[in-house]
Amino acid sequence: MAAIGIIGGTGHLGKAIARRLAKAGHSVSIGSRDGERARATATEIGARTGGTNAAMAAGQEVLIVTVPFAAQAATLAEIAPHIGDAVVVDTTVPLVPPKVMRVQLPAAGSAAQTAAALLGPAVRLVSGFHNVAAHILDTDALVDCDVLVFGDDVPARNVVIGLAADMGLRGLSGGALANSAAAEALTSVLIYLNKTYAADGAGIRFTGLTTAPAV
Amino acid sequence: MAAIGIIGGTGHLGKAIARRLAKAGHSVSIGSRDGERARATATEIGARTGGTNAAMAAGQEVLIVTVPFAAQAATLAEIAPHIGDAVVVDTTVPLVPPKVMRVQLPAAGSAAQTAAALLGPAVRLVSGFHNVAAHILDTDALVDCDVLVFGDDVPARNVVIGLAADMGLRGLSGGALANSAAAEALTSVLIYLNKTYAADGAGIRFTGLTTAPAV
Repeated sequence: MAAIGIIGGTGHLGKAIARRLAKAGHSVSIGSRDGERARATATEIGARTGGTNAAMAAGQEVLIVTVPFAAQAATLAEIAPHIGDAVVVDTTVPLVPPKVMRVQLPAAGSAAQTAAALLGPAVRLVSGFHNVAAHILDTDALVDCDVLVFGDDVPARNVVIGLAADMGLRGLSGGALANSAAAEALTSVLIYLNKTYAADGAGIRFTGLTTAPAV
Repeated sequence: MAAIGIIGGTGHLGKAIARRLAKAGHSVSIGSRDGERARATATEIGARTGGTNAAMAAGQEVLIVTVPFAAQAATLAEIAPHIGDAVVVDTTVPLVPPKVMRVQLPAAGSAAQTAAALLGPAVRLVSGFHNVAAHILDTDALVDCDVLVFGDDVPARNVVIGLAADMGLRGLSGGALANSAAAEALTSVLIYLNKTYAADGAGIRFTGLTTAPAV
């Protein structure tokens, strides 16, 4: 079981991820801009503790960053001094309101590559969890959606694929960090599909894989 | 039934699309740089006729462009004078050999937007068929993969969703032409998944949609 800090862990996605990881037995710390609110969320979902993002970033094995695109740069700058050897999982989807149904990838190619530029090459960076519907993940229901995990550090990527499995999700390696653009762009398409096809949490499943674990 | 020209119709994807559309009863013309080869392919798969790309582009209701990324610009320039009112379906995936498992989207954001810039606003442009495995499409087997169709011309987009259904595929609107980046990027991920998970034609299915037709 791993020591995991959820940065932005009072938001929809962060809270849902934290709940599932805590339930699986991991030692989960909730970080937020508002330390008091983080402590309340930690109590609510059975996490170990809560506090400010910076405080919760220190001393972890894995940090999962779940903040809106607009807060990505500031949040990464805030936690950067405390990352150490932790695997950092960036879940940022580059949605640009109000046109959230339109793919608008950042200049770096993806939010993951934006994070890489901000954190530098020494940080073990992975991206993932871009396509799961947070409101379904936040229940015990089956999440009918695969989780693509991207990164150039293969052992780090495998750690996160394992965490997805602990959460009851099928994690798949999607390859290099640069490939994160595919999953990030897909989120705008999923939002569009939700509206167009009267869905409540459209997801994706990959077909034809022969050696991937089924969930 | 529609008059459809397949530009680059002797390639793997073009030939497979042509075969399924011809079988569904459409009047299919095969275009190729090599008119003689196009005529041979037309005979082989039961299409109406074959010839050079320029000759086959004229007088069609739908043109489906299935050429490699490196040939996209020259091919579109070649057929542009003959498009008229036809709906143009660009299937180009911006793979940049040798790193075809790495997402490398073009400067315009996507190959579809590259096509839009080349053809100008008067052409009724749609993109689609980026993710289907050509070697499965070229058989009568079930293709376990949804087809996302992108475009800013909604009636044109719906024409192509209908053609996907005629081919035994589930076509889904993916929204604006700019969203084509998602499906184009995903193709590199699918190639990576094929290699990593010992798959032979990995595909994607969207889950949770309530009003989409099942295929």
